Amino acid sequence: MTAGVSAAGPVVGVDIGGTKTAAAVVGPDGTLAHRVEAPTPARGGAEAVLDTAAGLVAEAAARAGAAGGPAAVGVGSAGAFDDHGVVVHATDHLAGWHGTDVAGGLRGRLGVPVAVENDVHAAALGEHWAGGAPERFLFVAVGTGLGGAVVSDGGVLRGASGMAGSVGHVRIPTLAHRVCSCGGADHLEAFASGPGIELTYAEVAGRSLGLREIARLASAGDTVAARVIREAAELVGESLASAVVTIDPGLVLIGGGVSGLGTALTAPLAERLHADLRPPFAGVRVELARTGADAALLGAGRLGHELLEPGPRD
Amino acid sequence: MTAGVSAAGPVVGVDIGGTKTAAAVVGPDGTLAHRVEAPTPARGGAEAVLDTAAGLVAEAAARAGAAGGPAAVGVGSAGAFDDHGVVVHATDHLAGWHGTDVAGGLRGRLGVPVAVENDVHAAALGEHWAGGAPERFLFVAVGTGLGGAVVSDGGVLRGASGMAGSVGHVRIPTLAHRVCSCGGADHLEAFASGPGIELTYAEVAGRSLGLREIARLASAGDTVAARVIREAAELVGESLASAVVTIDPGLVLIGGGVSGLGTALTAPLAERLHADLRPPFAGVRVELARTGADAALLGAGRLGHELLEPGPRD
Repeated sequence: MTAGVSAAGPVVGVDIGGTKTAAAVVGPDGTLAHRVEAPTPARGGAEAVLDTAAGLVAEAAARAGAAGGPAAVGVGSAGAFDDHGVVVHATDHLAGWHGTDVAGGLRGRLGVPVAVENDVHAAALGEHWAGGAPERFLFVAVGTGLGGAVVSDGGVLRGASGMAGSVGHVRIPTLAHRVCSCGGADHLEAFASGPGIELTYAEVAGRSLGLREIARLASAGDTVAARVIREAAELVGESLASAVVTIDPGLVLIGGGVSGLGTALTAPLAERLHADLRPPFAGVRVELARTGADAALLGAGRLGHELLEPGPRD
Repeated sequence: MTAGVSAAGPVVGVDIGGTKTAAAVVGPDGTLAHRVEAPTPARGGAEAVLDTAAGLVAEAAARAGAAGGPAAVGVGSAGAFDDHGVVVHATDHLAGWHGTDVAGGLRGRLGVPVAVENDVHAAALGEHWAGGAPERFLFVAVGTGLGGAVVSDGGVLRGASGMAGSVGHVRIPTLAHRVCSCGGADHLEAFASGPGIELTYAEVAGRSLGLREIARLASAGDTVAARVIREAAELVGESLASAVVTIDPGLVLIGGGVSGLGTALTAPLAERLHADLRPPFAGVRVELARTGADAALLGAGRLGHELLEPGPRD
């Protein structure tokens, strides 16, 4: 039997994103093993997405040597969910996702308990559980989108519609002429997400490059590339001031794919954020998240383990 | 014996503000009686402020016929407090307030258990407890300042420095040239608090009037007065969009003295807020708080009752 797999079978975490779906066995100690992934059939409808996720869960469990399948499954997924794991809000990234009973659909396919959370909320939970983050922080995921999560007393604030922490969907009044993925005008996400930064670079430099290449140019001394990254980071810092005075988190953790930029992202972000804040908020720390691309998988795994623990959920 | 007074004596709530201090007997059912108040000796130092508060507590208890004084005291006060009721952050409104052991100072004067919270946090608690507010909402107090509180699962989010909900202390990038009470540049509070609205009216109309008179003119058809109020309300709505996407409260309750403007404040506020939000946030409701000027006293009373209840605090 593999480490982290109990007699009842392993706990498997699943991360359903707009581009790819990943699954892995998550140990009770926050370790991750037997990671498998596949493209998300985003245009194939909800049933196809659930089939893919269930297949990956079974594959991860099988790789862990669990002939009987997993003991429990935790899911982090795009969208907002009600308490029963049904999608109550979704963008168009996954066709037909709204209204899907993700928990029930996977329970039916796998025959085990399933817990579901928004993927960014799951990532924040993973950062808290496996990344050593404290009891209270604001998690900001800068990637294809720009999302976030509010962690308080070690738990994620769900919000009235399950979407608390959506710090990317606020209008930047000094900017104009971009439509956000959510349909809103001039939201932070449209300028400071990975695609937002790439679009700004294309507008300024007159040629389209991927974020990795823009970052490489900036590191090599290209002033245009460096300025585009710095200004996007400053926008995030400026915009987060409201979130910081509202929840007084003490710590902002920056995750998501774009956080791979490291201090090129966090330094101008923190400088601008601190410039706009007064005591007692000006002392808020800004740091890079630690669990990287696996944050949502780890948080999903944590949800799965909670299903097996004695307690209020039983 | 008066209603709401147990054999052990009544619970007294205290509201220590920059201008006046009030105390009242608060019943276990959220009723308020024997309200007394006095000017806060704001320039007289912390000991004078505590003397005034303790005197008012004794007076309210005596009026309730409690010869033995109160059974417990709850306090809502300007400033941020640590878990022991010591001021860890304060503006200059109360001289020497920073570092004051408010809980200990009143406990020493009165000989009974004392619990202390920030006054806006106490007001939100009062609104929840005695005003019928739900388990989750954003409370915004528009008055001499512009503060707020985040209520989640029926409790107030304290934050790392005890000042979560400070929605007034965020810079409005489209405005300029006012210094906030906190020292920040162009914060919402500087434009949309009572004094902020009065200052805008003076700038626009060329004469200084109090808010009550400005409101009267607006009701009588004065377009300048009406515009000044409407634009201040719109600034609040614009600014609150960030708080709404961050905590996803579902409901915003507007309290504080300026909320006496009624729908002249809430209608343009809600219109602007909704215009800047997309689903699932655009459905957030905006309503007037119900407990009015007594919100902080009621919340303080609730804190006092919690001291007498068996539970984790004992």
